[in-house]
Amino acid sequence: MQKQLKEYKKTLMELKRLEGISALLEWDQENQMPAKSIKSRSETSALIAKITHEKSTNKQFGDLINELYENSDKLDPVEKRSIEVTKKNYDKVVKLPTEFVEEFSKLRSLAQSAWVEAKAKENYLHFEPYLKKIIKFSRDYARYIDKKKPIYDVLLDDYEEGMTTTKLQEVFSDLKIELIELLSKIPTKENKKSLSSQVFDKDITRKFLLEMTKQIGFDYERGALGEVHHPFETSITEDDIRINVSYPEKYLAYSITAAIHEAGHGLYEQNVDKKYHETALGHGVSLGIHESQSRLLENMIGRSEAFWKFFLPKLKKYYPSLDKIKVEDVVGDLNRVTSSFIRTEADEVTYNMHIILRFELELLLLDEELSTKDLPEEWDKMMHELLGIKPKKISKGVLQDVHWSIGAVGYFPTYALGNLNAGQLWNKFISENKKWESEVAKGDFTSYFNWFKENIWRHGGYYKPRDLMIKATGEDLNAKYFVEYLNKKYLG
Amino acid sequence: MQKQLKEYKKTLMELKRLEGISALLEWDQENQMPAKSIKSRSETSALIAKITHEKSTNKQFGDLINELYENSDKLDPVEKRSIEVTKKNYDKVVKLPTEFVEEFSKLRSLAQSAWVEAKAKENYLHFEPYLKKIIKFSRDYARYIDKKKPIYDVLLDDYEEGMTTTKLQEVFSDLKIELIELLSKIPTKENKKSLSSQVFDKDITRKFLLEMTKQIGFDYERGALGEVHHPFETSITEDDIRINVSYPEKYLAYSITAAIHEAGHGLYEQNVDKKYHETALGHGVSLGIHESQSRLLENMIGRSEAFWKFFLPKLKKYYPSLDKIKVEDVVGDLNRVTSSFIRTEADEVTYNMHIILRFELELLLLDEELSTKDLPEEWDKMMHELLGIKPKKISKGVLQDVHWSIGAVGYFPTYALGNLNAGQLWNKFISENKKWESEVAKGDFTSYFNWFKENIWRHGGYYKPRDLMIKATGEDLNAKYFVEYLNKKYLG
Repeated sequence: MQKQLKEYKKTLMELKRLEGISALLEWDQENQMPAKSIKSRSETSALIAKITHEKSTNKQFGDLINELYENSDKLDPVEKRSIEVTKKNYDKVVKLPTEFVEEFSKLRSLAQSAWVEAKAKENYLHFEPYLKKIIKFSRDYARYIDKKKPIYDVLLDDYEEGMTTTKLQEVFSDLKIELIELLSKIPTKENKKSLSSQVFDKDITRKFLLEMTKQIGFDYERGALGEVHHPFETSITEDDIRINVSYPEKYLAYSITAAIHEAGHGLYEQNVDKKYHETALGHGVSLGIHESQSRLLENMIGRSEAFWKFFLPKLKKYYPSLDKIKVEDVVGDLNRVTSSFIRTEADEVTYNMHIILRFELELLLLDEELSTKDLPEEWDKMMHELLGIKPKKISKGVLQDVHWSIGAVGYFPTYALGNLNAGQLWNKFISENKKWESEVAKGDFTSYFNWFKENIWRHGGYYKPRDLMIKATGEDLNAKYFVEYLNKKYLG
Repeated sequence: MQKQLKEYKKTLMELKRLEGISALLEWDQENQMPAKSIKSRSETSALIAKITHEKSTNKQFGDLINELYENSDKLDPVEKRSIEVTKKNYDKVVKLPTEFVEEFSKLRSLAQSAWVEAKAKENYLHFEPYLKKIIKFSRDYARYIDKKKPIYDVLLDDYEEGMTTTKLQEVFSDLKIELIELLSKIPTKENKKSLSSQVFDKDITRKFLLEMTKQIGFDYERGALGEVHHPFETSITEDDIRINVSYPEKYLAYSITAAIHEAGHGLYEQNVDKKYHETALGHGVSLGIHESQSRLLENMIGRSEAFWKFFLPKLKKYYPSLDKIKVEDVVGDLNRVTSSFIRTEADEVTYNMHIILRFELELLLLDEELSTKDLPEEWDKMMHELLGIKPKKISKGVLQDVHWSIGAVGYFPTYALGNLNAGQLWNKFISENKKWESEVAKGDFTSYFNWFKENIWRHGGYYKPRDLMIKATGEDLNAKYFVEYLNKKYLG
């Protein structure tokens, strides 16, 4: 099988490099590309999508995969799992016509650019025709992959292997009840605006973010910090992991929490074991696990008193004007529970309501029970039901997230799964690392880094999400840890 | 022929988009990519080179080109010339084995990265093995293309269609005599260090460069300003033209003249007529013409009194510490003729000696009369002959330029051709625009912009370099205008 294995790896690596090019094209579109180049960029992205599709559905490659899959008992466990993952992907993409892949890619580039403009102009109608097409393409996509399965289940499977709509509905319905009860008990806190008291300078903030993320363990010899409209992490290659934030000029806390969050993703990607780099297992295993790493670092650690004991004095060196701010002011502000419009700025408790809202809207849109034209009205109505507030601007409502514009429908639920996984992993981590607070307060992230590298990061895509959670925590995903964590933190 | 033409255009556009990806990968390698990602980046660049090569040498595409070429009298003149250019390129690349193209691309990425490191560490031996390979690959390349032609002629033809080594030797030998005479007559001027008197801030300088290049006419809705080790301009697509400079902290004049120079290239690329975008004629026609546009803007305009009358007050707003500097100080400094080590920092007169040096060394290396091991010694000896000085550091000698590391052997002579073309075009321009100085002194670049757009930029690759010069100036390339310009400027 060695000859076939070598041939398979060669194509696999080429596909990885093409994936990296797509990632670079998307990253550059937000980071550096001039506005008027969007048409040529969409053509370029579509071409790479087409080439990737042709290469990954190539008959010879398919035969090779099937041959290796049938003989996978003769392979070592890593190769075996790599082949499994490749076959699963092959069986999907081979069902998609090349033209569809190319057109969808073009649409995503154009839609993303239209979204940026629509958001800036507070003009939903500028984006609506693109969203309508995105929904249609998502439906078509699901139909190509599996006509028999519910559309949402097919979309979900791309992001979280094995997850279903029914399971999600169960989890979310329980979670909603718990959260509503918790929310009714949390006392209202005064808003001190500790980190939004002035106009902040992008270049200075950037220097602080570099120092902070380096201290946590992000490796800038294999990574970079970029600027984008909507924070995200992207892997150009295994040695080129880019975390990206935005710099609203009066909202320093946003840039900081975004950098911590994206560094959580980045650490996962940077610390996958090298032995997986030339396999299909070289990335974080699923979005629900990925998001647990970003949310855990952002919320459990990045919003803790220990974290700010160490980093507030550092921040004051960059911004002497913050001299009078105390650690408890920052921690208080970063953990204020209150209904708000923007998901990425929401506290840990209400955050999940934002996910439930998008999940329910996506189901309605895909089932054609809701048209994109009526979406803003439905959004506002549902937000009022869940959080008791209604956005006054469309940029604070439907247009706030980048996801739909880049075709990521079915993606949002993984954010909530991330929270649940984070709660469970955090419970296990602190039980084994009782000194984490005194360490972090000294800027020492070694225990954190080592534990997560050992239990999560290094495994890449080798274990399935469920197996990985069981291996790391001793049990299957259980929402109770997250609810317990919230109850303990907010009700004491 | 309409069906064939449509099919041809489709592949041509795909090839253009792939070219744009290669340009983006190279640009990003210098601008953003983390250091340790060089191996994966070299693999990615090599893959795109391979895909491009396969697509451009595809038998079906070749048949299509030949069919269209044979019937090109039936096509409109633009399509006809596009086919000619495509056929010339096809006839070349089809002779190159895919593996050679892939390996050469990989080598270039690695060599570029090795050059950056070697230069920083003042360690020639770190770069020498790569340079040795680059010379070998260049020789092999030339042999694949045409075994009968002199190696240097084959390499030259890629950059300047129709130029030959013999012609260059004639031109350079005459030029050398003229320059040596001129140099002996130019009086020595005091070095005032008007723009190198302090440490300058990258972010502030960048803001000035943006304002300055915008004022000249560079369009940032279709372009960007990036940061690199060695200034260059690159076209990612027809709507995404990036000019790139470096920011030595004590050497403001370098960043400014580099930005003007690269903006000259950028204006050419941005103003090619749209009708050429979907043909093979969508770029500047040759490097000799391209370089005339950057050198003319940098030297004839950017180092003029008129230019600084307008821009010095602007610059002082960014750097109030320059308050006491006068226009004549800056102009004096920017036009001081003196032997120096760095080509890109050289004055207009000695600049050409740097080119002659590289040209002669390249000939020796390619003819195997000089080994890369002995190159530094030979460099120093020749520099002493031509300019009377010897570099003390290798970063100021052999390692100063990026070109050899990126495989651009045979490229340097086009810089000198650029000067000669610039002299001739400038003579024509000022004879038709006698008020240029008073206009530029008011920040009005309209006459400049319109004349060069009309006579050079808009034509893209439609006219051959020689025909374009004749069309624009009424005569074939003639070095006398450049020599006259220098004599008038420096001897009055």
